[in-house]
Amino acid sequence: MSSLVSTRILYFILLLALSVAPVAAQFSPFRPLPAQPPIPDDNVQSPAKIALGKTLYFDPRLSGSGRTTCQQCHNLAYGAADGMAYSTGDDGTLTKRSAPTLWNVGFYTIWFWDGRAATLEDAVERHLMETNAMNGGSAEELSRRISAISGYGEQFRAAFGSDAVNSQSIAQALSSFLRTLVTQDSAFDRFLRGDKTALTETQQRGFEVFVDSGCASCHFWVSLAGPVPGLAFQIGEGFYELFPNYPDAPSDRKYKFSADLGRFHVTGDEADKRLFRVPTLRNVAHTAPYFHNGAVTTLKEAVRVMAEAQLRVDFSDAQLDDVVAFLNSLSGQYPPISVPQLPQ
Amino acid sequence: MSSLVSTRILYFILLLALSVAPVAAQFSPFRPLPAQPPIPDDNVQSPAKIALGKTLYFDPRLSGSGRTTCQQCHNLAYGAADGMAYSTGDDGTLTKRSAPTLWNVGFYTIWFWDGRAATLEDAVERHLMETNAMNGGSAEELSRRISAISGYGEQFRAAFGSDAVNSQSIAQALSSFLRTLVTQDSAFDRFLRGDKTALTETQQRGFEVFVDSGCASCHFWVSLAGPVPGLAFQIGEGFYELFPNYPDAPSDRKYKFSADLGRFHVTGDEADKRLFRVPTLRNVAHTAPYFHNGAVTTLKEAVRVMAEAQLRVDFSDAQLDDVVAFLNSLSGQYPPISVPQLPQ
Repeated sequence: MSSLVSTRILYFILLLALSVAPVAAQFSPFRPLPAQPPIPDDNVQSPAKIALGKTLYFDPRLSGSGRTTCQQCHNLAYGAADGMAYSTGDDGTLTKRSAPTLWNVGFYTIWFWDGRAATLEDAVERHLMETNAMNGGSAEELSRRISAISGYGEQFRAAFGSDAVNSQSIAQALSSFLRTLVTQDSAFDRFLRGDKTALTETQQRGFEVFVDSGCASCHFWVSLAGPVPGLAFQIGEGFYELFPNYPDAPSDRKYKFSADLGRFHVTGDEADKRLFRVPTLRNVAHTAPYFHNGAVTTLKEAVRVMAEAQLRVDFSDAQLDDVVAFLNSLSGQYPPISVPQLPQ
Repeated sequence: MSSLVSTRILYFILLLALSVAPVAAQFSPFRPLPAQPPIPDDNVQSPAKIALGKTLYFDPRLSGSGRTTCQQCHNLAYGAADGMAYSTGDDGTLTKRSAPTLWNVGFYTIWFWDGRAATLEDAVERHLMETNAMNGGSAEELSRRISAISGYGEQFRAAFGSDAVNSQSIAQALSSFLRTLVTQDSAFDRFLRGDKTALTETQQRGFEVFVDSGCASCHFWVSLAGPVPGLAFQIGEGFYELFPNYPDAPSDRKYKFSADLGRFHVTGDEADKRLFRVPTLRNVAHTAPYFHNGAVTTLKEAVRVMAEAQLRVDFSDAQLDDVVAFLNSLSGQYPPISVPQLPQ
């Protein structure tokens, strides 16, 4: 077993211990999803900024070709993703990894599968420029293009007190909107809040398998993607995991997960080979296909693969069904989003 | 002047005459936009059918690649079009004509620029199959793909009393949703209803130019796209116009409108060369670029071109500004549309 996973399991045991300690009843490895993720001091929420961000989300003029919107690959009707293994970027090429859901994206502490952004704002700004994403050109080109849309002036003034458009303010507004993409009140949240009938018996059995087998040693806290803010035991600046943990697993031969070395491609550090950010499991039943390469189309197979490649465990068919039932309890309520109207 | 245009002007004079006749005060060449377009007997509206249609509108699984939604080229945030001269179809090729707005699409009597569909349902069903549109495959393939999404069963039952999915029921649901895309209460509508202050003086001058110069001989009735249902003087089964009416106009050399022979490509009939469906002017300020080939990017230039190529008239700069101001009065209120959640 790798030292990373050992560290992770120690961390989880600590959390479990804290969660049963009467003096620290507020500690638990799981928490109901708050209404709002952490808000950075340098980008506080405001209704005007959120509205601007939503408008930009639907605006193809952010993209280099004028054809691609955020909504295209992070379809708010479709798990805030696109159901594809790889997405088609604005430059017509395929992305190198599968578009993750943006629901609850504000609860991460690092962004992208490889953690190449340390803030949501940075993630958005990079993605606006990346050619196989929005392909927006340089920061200057993007700013010039959006500045030329006179109808945006008033919205930027309302959001930022100035109609100066730049890639930072665009990213800030989009990030503010993204932080509203929170799916509260799943059955699991109601269960955590004390309604023990919120999970079916099958789901409760699945939850037990999930915890006892070790799934929860990485998938915990509010979005079942770790980590607990303010606690130590983080690996690097974010929350990464080896995947596959056992590259000799048959599923890696089948699905070729380890063809992508994850965070290593960012840092060049041998120790970062096959490290990926732990993804949220919230709404996982609505965000197929699975894994960084989107190679697995069903949730049941994804659970089987995780058990085999991460924990060297073979779940029985009944266990797989139980865990899948539990994962279905993580589907929350989607907040109402009205389609904006773009300025001219 | 072609006989088609002569016929059209006779028709318009008849309407004008009717509109001033005291015994027929209800006749006017212009009418406020009703809340709902005509509903066909074989596809009555229902909340369940409209909801299903909206869901399908955001579902990329209708498309052959699984990547394209109706929303992609008919972006409900962006004039129900995409702001491009030509759209990229699901097969990666460009469309041959510019995506028209779908706002108020239910008020047409023929569909597509070349009128190749006589009902909205037919237009939708064809577009689902056309390779440079949704590229959905055969009717059987489309049906099989959507039938395989078990979560749709309940929605189809609620809409049609049966969970049988086929290309007709898909097109019916989508059409029912499209018939809700009505933008009432523009300044012009309030003006027509008797509020003479609803148009600015500039807009009223532009309206006079619009009527007196002959723009209104084709652009009239509820959606300023003709024709008046139940009245004669229709050309063929729809409402077409020669464009350009004067192919020797300098603007045709510049913008190459007549490179596309319009309805002729459907019928092969010489008399149909350069015939195009008259497009709505509702929300025209929000649906650039203009014309079947999207060759003109500004509304002012579009008005200048129309005057030159259709009426052989040179508007003064002041007249152009006035007509553009009037056309801005045709922007209505967009109905609220909440983003649906797709079934699995």
